[in-house]
Amino acid sequence: MRLSTVRRPDGTTRAGRVEGDTIVLLDQPCVGTLIASGLDWRETAASATGETIPLATADLAPLVPNPPKIVCMGLNYATHLKEMGRTPPTHPTLFAKYTRSLIGPTDDIIVPPVTNAVDWEGELAFVIGTTVRFADERQALEAIAGYTIMNDVTMRDWQFRTLQFLQGKTFEGSTPLGPALVTPDDIDNPSDLSLRTLVNGAVMQKSRTSDLLFPPVEIVRYVSQFITLEPGDVLTTGTPGGVGHGRDPKVYLADGDVVTVDVEGLGVTRNTVRFS
Amino acid sequence: MRLSTVRRPDGTTRAGRVEGDTIVLLDQPCVGTLIASGLDWRETAASATGETIPLATADLAPLVPNPPKIVCMGLNYATHLKEMGRTPPTHPTLFAKYTRSLIGPTDDIIVPPVTNAVDWEGELAFVIGTTVRFADERQALEAIAGYTIMNDVTMRDWQFRTLQFLQGKTFEGSTPLGPALVTPDDIDNPSDLSLRTLVNGAVMQKSRTSDLLFPPVEIVRYVSQFITLEPGDVLTTGTPGGVGHGRDPKVYLADGDVVTVDVEGLGVTRNTVRFS
Repeated sequence: MRLSTVRRPDGTTRAGRVEGDTIVLLDQPCVGTLIASGLDWRETAASATGETIPLATADLAPLVPNPPKIVCMGLNYATHLKEMGRTPPTHPTLFAKYTRSLIGPTDDIIVPPVTNAVDWEGELAFVIGTTVRFADERQALEAIAGYTIMNDVTMRDWQFRTLQFLQGKTFEGSTPLGPALVTPDDIDNPSDLSLRTLVNGAVMQKSRTSDLLFPPVEIVRYVSQFITLEPGDVLTTGTPGGVGHGRDPKVYLADGDVVTVDVEGLGVTRNTVRFS
Repeated sequence: MRLSTVRRPDGTTRAGRVEGDTIVLLDQPCVGTLIASGLDWRETAASATGETIPLATADLAPLVPNPPKIVCMGLNYATHLKEMGRTPPTHPTLFAKYTRSLIGPTDDIIVPPVTNAVDWEGELAFVIGTTVRFADERQALEAIAGYTIMNDVTMRDWQFRTLQFLQGKTFEGSTPLGPALVTPDDIDNPSDLSLRTLVNGAVMQKSRTSDLLFPPVEIVRYVSQFITLEPGDVLTTGTPGGVGHGRDPKVYLADGDVVTVDVEGLGVTRNTVRFS
């Protein structure tokens, strides 16, 4: 099953089930509230009938517009560690984003004039479906509602002003999330998906999720040791090698650039950069 | 004016105005929703009449139980920089906490057995009252609804597992916030308040907010360059010297310890540590 959150002409949003080239609108305002609505959300979403809209012209909102938590991961692909000059970590490197960072999977990335080092980070992301604390491996696996894509767009000049990444990671309206939540039963093997990031059609990142040092189940297990994970939480898995900052010379996104993240079976995010 | 959020016997919470030794209950469920309710929240809160409860026996919730953002600051007092072996920064060092970290100003700090390095960080905190982006100094000052106290309790073993502080800063139920929001008209000078942290009655931190490298107005101005601040957001200003981790030998909180943070004019947080 594939679920998206769509913007409606009246300014509201609605969760929807993707069926081929249409979206069946559900009663819930977004995929986050749907997942939080109860243990039978899968059945509710799968069986719903009602108004449909064409997928091609749907205005997609951030998949989960208002997650209780956004937990991001750094330094989780061997290739990215190498290009950033770091050694493999013994523990997951975690940082947060604020909700206002999120945009839809085809929205423009509006860049204010305070930064000039906008970089891409294509990532496998996932959404929590049940409340878990101190999860074991089985509970961690069952807590994953489904998978999606995040482009963890990063303002490198702000990221490296201090030791803490946050300020370079949470610019308003900078983080595409979507296009769909794909439930585990609709993915062959989330531990071995191809991932590519393209800028204006040129492949910049190319890896497989089999290269992850800490896979999603391990991230859930680890994070749930210090805080409760709950339905609608969004977690990411970090980015592979090939970011602009790791190149020689360094490459950053320019006004008008189109950045695409493509994860096997999950669809794509495709966003145009607009300097404001 | 002094405002608190109190827990009610029916399991709900209510905002309240502190009047001497009583609290006048307001219509809003917490100080956060009160501030977000509109520009006249000060007048609404100041003029409300109704049920009162004794302050002494009130069960205080986190001042803002569910802030849109919690923006924390590190390395902002010259004394603390020195004890942690760091040089003064050119930019604010910022990190996040998740909402589930917050507890009330007299709640127990429940420590799970996964950590054994629980440290105190007494801090001046403040709450945003209006929506601001790219704030100038005047807008930043006007955006501050009032001041309060946060004990930025930190699990040092987790904080230093990686370069990113987050995981040591956001343990579930670890961060006292309160006891009251004190509006600027009720504080002589927020830029020169005494701050003390005591453990079992012994003074461990003692400083003045005049020692802050980046005062609240500057933090608002800076953060609003990358993200919109909005009513109910909680920001902190970092901690002065005297944390347990900076001592020789290092000192951490033990089961049964009582940690108190006392900021001039703002009241105290007083929490007992309980190892679970």
